[in-house]
Amino acid sequence: MNIVFIGSGNVATHMAMALKNAGSNIIQIYSRTYLHAQVLASKVNAEPVSNLNNLNREADLYIFSLNDDILPSFIKMMPNTTGIWAHTAGSVPMSLFEERLDIGGYGVIYPLQTLSKERDLDFSKISLFIEGEISETENKLLSVAKTISDDVKLLDSESRKYLHLAAVFANNFANHMFTLANEVLSERGVAFDALRPLIAETAAKVLEMEPKKAQTGPAIRLDEKVINKHLELIKDDKIKEIYTILSESINRYST
Amino acid sequence: MNIVFIGSGNVATHMAMALKNAGSNIIQIYSRTYLHAQVLASKVNAEPVSNLNNLNREADLYIFSLNDDILPSFIKMMPNTTGIWAHTAGSVPMSLFEERLDIGGYGVIYPLQTLSKERDLDFSKISLFIEGEISETENKLLSVAKTISDDVKLLDSESRKYLHLAAVFANNFANHMFTLANEVLSERGVAFDALRPLIAETAAKVLEMEPKKAQTGPAIRLDEKVINKHLELIKDDKIKEIYTILSESINRYST
Repeated sequence: MNIVFIGSGNVATHMAMALKNAGSNIIQIYSRTYLHAQVLASKVNAEPVSNLNNLNREADLYIFSLNDDILPSFIKMMPNTTGIWAHTAGSVPMSLFEERLDIGGYGVIYPLQTLSKERDLDFSKISLFIEGEISETENKLLSVAKTISDDVKLLDSESRKYLHLAAVFANNFANHMFTLANEVLSERGVAFDALRPLIAETAAKVLEMEPKKAQTGPAIRLDEKVINKHLELIKDDKIKEIYTILSESINRYST
Repeated sequence: MNIVFIGSGNVATHMAMALKNAGSNIIQIYSRTYLHAQVLASKVNAEPVSNLNNLNREADLYIFSLNDDILPSFIKMMPNTTGIWAHTAGSVPMSLFEERLDIGGYGVIYPLQTLSKERDLDFSKISLFIEGEISETENKLLSVAKTISDDVKLLDSESRKYLHLAAVFANNFANHMFTLANEVLSERGVAFDALRPLIAETAAKVLEMEPKKAQTGPAIRLDEKVINKHLELIKDDKIKEIYTILSESINRYST
């Protein structure tokens, strides 16, 4: 399969490398910044492109992995091609492609993961959520997706939006709690390492339990004495506000 | 070693069982509610007690595992004993015991974990942080702690306070993010299972990386289009407020 990537960020990088390893042919990497295109292109033996006029128009699949902000304008600017167009965005409906009736099918390959360029990740463990405008496209995207992931499912645009929002809580905000924990520790010069076994167990618990049942700590126990001591200890007003709001929220879901 | 537990909650339950398995003799479990004392006592072959007058006064170690709110009044009420008194609280200084000069030494055994009665946990993987009023006590507590955990360290009362506060962020608040993610998914009838691989990776990342470097998502990318879509999707005003405040906070630590 011949594949062109539009975009060269974290998602494009991990997905392009996984597809190449699975035997697909990544023929071009497009980025507005030629240097960015080059970095990824060199990893997957593709041609870097920064001018849409130079885009190969006969690939089997064009994967758009761009910020939601610029995706709509890119789809308008794209030259006609054969092949399927698919984006990787959680919160963009598949219908964004509808206006381009000149293309060979369209859909979505949404990877539900937190991808950092610095971290190697076994792509086969990443859940991929697929949608296609007709079942023929859907089946093609499913079979490509299955070459790189063990966990491939169909999901419509509306549900994908909710899943993406939930992922912001489950990953982005949870990770930010680890950042704030680290801030608190560095006030006293305690190394973040002390928390790592706790963090491992925090995740391990909800792999088996409902998160509500896994909740522990002063807020769920209504232990105001501890809560007040903690608020006294926090110097930063914004972190104090977060502590208060989240403690109240835990309480709200405690019944 | 003969041990009495004052309290029968999650921490007391897991610690008493670990100590019994490691060969210690748990002689009594005290709880104000006799039934609660009985439940744990039956698990560790101890005598349940709900009247302080019946407390055995010749144990080697008394472990106080009570809410911070009631711990000070209990220490006042306790009869004289031989043996060491130790509490398990993160935010209570060791000096709480100072007023009782009639006892045989005092200190702290602080387990940094999230303990739920419903979940079996390998106690040997729990970090225990120890403090004693003199090195003789400290050494006794260290050696007891090492019978049940592979990760035992000394930590003073002031650092312990910060560690406890950081643990609220790293565990309690992170877990609450999983609860809110579940709330969001249930709006659309999507099962929480879809998020579990993401949560596993969220923790796995910060076991190796600094949490700031592990941060991904719309807030760190300043992707306002996604942020606004998410805010539109959230019906509940309090969850909306949490989304906004945490996105701002991620941004603040992004530089």
